[in-house]
Amino acid sequence: MGISATETDLPTLYCPLESAVHRRARQVESQAVRWIRESGMCASEHEQSWVVATHSTDFFARFAPIADDDRLLATSLWVYWGFAFDDAKCDNGPLSNNPARFNALAGMVQRAAESPAALDSAERFIGPLQNIVGRFRSFGTPAQVRRFTDAHRAWLSGVCWQIGNQAAERMPALDEYLAMRLLAAGGEPTFAMLELATGHEVPDQDLRRPAVRALTEMAIMVAALDNDRHSLRKEVSRGQTDQNIYNVLMRHQHMSLPEAVEAATRIRDRVLIRFMRVHDRFRPRAGTELACYLQGLRYGIRGNAEWGLRVPRYLSLGHVPDAMDEAPLDWAEAPADSSDVPIPMAPTVAWWWDDQLLY
Amino acid sequence: MGISATETDLPTLYCPLESAVHRRARQVESQAVRWIRESGMCASEHEQSWVVATHSTDFFARFAPIADDDRLLATSLWVYWGFAFDDAKCDNGPLSNNPARFNALAGMVQRAAESPAALDSAERFIGPLQNIVGRFRSFGTPAQVRRFTDAHRAWLSGVCWQIGNQAAERMPALDEYLAMRLLAAGGEPTFAMLELATGHEVPDQDLRRPAVRALTEMAIMVAALDNDRHSLRKEVSRGQTDQNIYNVLMRHQHMSLPEAVEAATRIRDRVLIRFMRVHDRFRPRAGTELACYLQGLRYGIRGNAEWGLRVPRYLSLGHVPDAMDEAPLDWAEAPADSSDVPIPMAPTVAWWWDDQLLY
Repeated sequence: MGISATETDLPTLYCPLESAVHRRARQVESQAVRWIRESGMCASEHEQSWVVATHSTDFFARFAPIADDDRLLATSLWVYWGFAFDDAKCDNGPLSNNPARFNALAGMVQRAAESPAALDSAERFIGPLQNIVGRFRSFGTPAQVRRFTDAHRAWLSGVCWQIGNQAAERMPALDEYLAMRLLAAGGEPTFAMLELATGHEVPDQDLRRPAVRALTEMAIMVAALDNDRHSLRKEVSRGQTDQNIYNVLMRHQHMSLPEAVEAATRIRDRVLIRFMRVHDRFRPRAGTELACYLQGLRYGIRGNAEWGLRVPRYLSLGHVPDAMDEAPLDWAEAPADSSDVPIPMAPTVAWWWDDQLLY
Repeated sequence: MGISATETDLPTLYCPLESAVHRRARQVESQAVRWIRESGMCASEHEQSWVVATHSTDFFARFAPIADDDRLLATSLWVYWGFAFDDAKCDNGPLSNNPARFNALAGMVQRAAESPAALDSAERFIGPLQNIVGRFRSFGTPAQVRRFTDAHRAWLSGVCWQIGNQAAERMPALDEYLAMRLLAAGGEPTFAMLELATGHEVPDQDLRRPAVRALTEMAIMVAALDNDRHSLRKEVSRGQTDQNIYNVLMRHQHMSLPEAVEAATRIRDRVLIRFMRVHDRFRPRAGTELACYLQGLRYGIRGNAEWGLRVPRYLSLGHVPDAMDEAPLDWAEAPADSSDVPIPMAPTVAWWWDDQLLY
């Protein structure tokens, strides 16, 4: 199944959340670029230019506008690292179709994040990851670092799932896709870095509340579906049929692409509306650290959208990445769907609409 | 490569830790057996008889001798469930050689553990798992349940790794094997259930201390290597060449089976000696909840060994499981290796010997 529409068919995004960006993002980005060049994680100049062009510092500077510079640097480095790993090992390359080998690589990468003494000189991504997690250990608490490494495992488990489906040429149905995308999108480690960036450690009993977990999952899902949208133009231009929300709906719900775009927009907006409703009920009762985390989720949804609408990763179709787009952004004035009920045929996320999250 | 020795070549286990068992283990076991019969998770009477013969209540009754009955029941049920899932989906069956399909199954199983509304009527293991985790939610705190589900994901990630290696006919070298076995052995969720069973919630800043993490990993490793030992006789009788410590050492370190048995015993004893050393330095400074958890690690190492030396899962070679062995156990009087330095060629676990864990 191929996609045959263009970017111009996509509606503007609805996102009435605060926008912010770290005021020293450019300076920190220069440090990050220097680190990337020296890290040895890129196999070629060409790969390196695409990694730099992810503008991951700009990305995370929108999630954590109040971070200290060294914390913004370290967390940005993980975003660069994640994109580089994703492009070389997950979405492309010889392992993207080989779940047996990818599972073993994911296992050793994860162990290297957890165990500083782990060694694998044959794998170019392991040393740089250990350097990054070493920075996290230097300024983060053991609980914050553990939350990050748990989230890192969740991400890799989603990538294993995605690569397995890819190898089996299996397009998941909506419910499985949403469960997989929640993990594979990388939102778990990205949002787990909020605490490392701001320094505010959320008490465990706050972080584990169902409402906080639901808000985290919803923030990840909105960002992940936005990234499906941002990727569509590139996918179209390359005739790819990756696992994304549009292909899932076209395959399993027998929709045309315009119908799938409309349905996906409604799903995404319904999640965002629910996020805002639960947030608004819950936030006034949150303590300082939890409030900071919840604000980070809001910044993250908005920042991911702003970044995704401009970044060459999604926009630049040539061999060499273009410069970051600087054009002003247009936003939708109203959601495509504001109904406050679960998404049909998606039981794994239905609990986001549980009444008890509001009390 | 085949294994050609018998059980009689194995040295007795060294395990100078306290033995205990829940005084109502038999009554709770009867309730568990009734639940298994009604759960629908077993595909046949034959499968059910082997699941019952895991004596998982006896197993976990040794980990948590002080648990309330309903907590011992629920935690035991997960052990039964884990063995049943392992036998049907991981070690045998059509998925044991198919990482693409297993990754997707693991993803949906994990999501079902996290999301009570997730549904998959086609998969017989999902409903029973949700029943069990629902019990955990009824008496556990959100933090305890989250620790369990994170540990559950870690376990499944290890099984994905193991199945990938199996499919690729790849015998990992020692370092990779230890990192994989730490996860695939199931020790993470098993020890995460200590808190659910006892009700004592360990403060996050205690649980995340490096020494506590190292003790947890070492307890898992000792139990996992003991289980490799317990499984050897069955493996021999079936001519299997699964990934286990003996096959790893024979393949990659060019040992005969007697040499591998000796080397594996030394590795296992060295980990246990280090566990005891770190424990003894750390325990006097632990608060009530942490002390309860650390005692659970000790009970677990000892209880797993006692159970493994008697359970028909490992001992019974016929088509139908024999009764549980009741013979008194012999133990080694001294460790085969008490040197307090890292295991050679195993950098992923070398940090267990960091000096700073002692201060």
